Amino acid sequence: MARSAFTQAELRFLARMRVGRLATCDAGGQPHVVPIVFAVEGHRLYTPLDEKPKRVAVGQLKRVRNILVNPQVAVVVDEYDEDWSRLAWVLIRGTAEIVAEGEAHATAMYLLRDKYPQYAAANLERRPVIVIRPTRIAQWGFLGRPTADVT
Amino acid sequence: MARSAFTQAELRFLARMRVGRLATCDAGGQPHVVPIVFAVEGHRLYTPLDEKPKRVAVGQLKRVRNILVNPQVAVVVDEYDEDWSRLAWVLIRGTAEIVAEGEAHATAMYLLRDKYPQYAAANLERRPVIVIRPTRIAQWGFLGRPTADVT
Repeated sequence: MARSAFTQAELRFLARMRVGRLATCDAGGQPHVVPIVFAVEGHRLYTPLDEKPKRVAVGQLKRVRNILVNPQVAVVVDEYDEDWSRLAWVLIRGTAEIVAEGEAHATAMYLLRDKYPQYAAANLERRPVIVIRPTRIAQWGFLGRPTADVT
Repeated sequence: MARSAFTQAELRFLARMRVGRLATCDAGGQPHVVPIVFAVEGHRLYTPLDEKPKRVAVGQLKRVRNILVNPQVAVVVDEYDEDWSRLAWVLIRGTAEIVAEGEAHATAMYLLRDKYPQYAAANLERRPVIVIRPTRIAQWGFLGRPTADVT
């Protein structure tokens, strides 16, 4: 039942979607959720830690503090349509890690630059990324075109 | 610091946005997040429990099971734009309750029908709603038009 790799239909949908939402939870069970840009490959989802206005240090971001005490996360990527028969989402539950260098970081930088032209001039290399390893992937609704692996 | 009522700018933004994302957390600290339709008034956010394909019982929905063991929730409502200087979100943290009847339920039905014409022919009265009482509201970015109360 619990899938940890994306289907082809999910990969197409996730490549087309520009924003997802990352949910984390602190030690006291309080959830937190923020919009994220992201990129995926077969077994990973990557999201960068952008600099914030007023230059909040990355380690002070609530999502980061939550992940450091509880690496369990969830990401939903959904498409809204006023025709509710066309709603769709992919829900990824998994474990998150903050990564500042190395192969996973380099892969994230490449995929994020490829997906988002906004990063063309950005100095992404100095930003940590959140690397999420899915442990359970679910989908619902109309992902964009009928495929055999839509459940 | 912690606000529990929406500002006028937030109410305008939340009225314009058609979809939010609700994060819950189970007893083991695993977050869950799903897209939701919603309506707000000054001190409350309402989201209905829609019937699902295959008629999953409302009590079996993961969001409901999580709320019953841990009523702490978070909702983010955000607007994406390829011009990243125009990104915006409102983050609501609070406590959730499943309500099947009474005044809060009637208010939710009225507000949801008023916002979503898709509900015109739906038998909403028989569906429970999640009523969220904000304990902490935060906002970030460009909510739509400059106003004095945007912090």
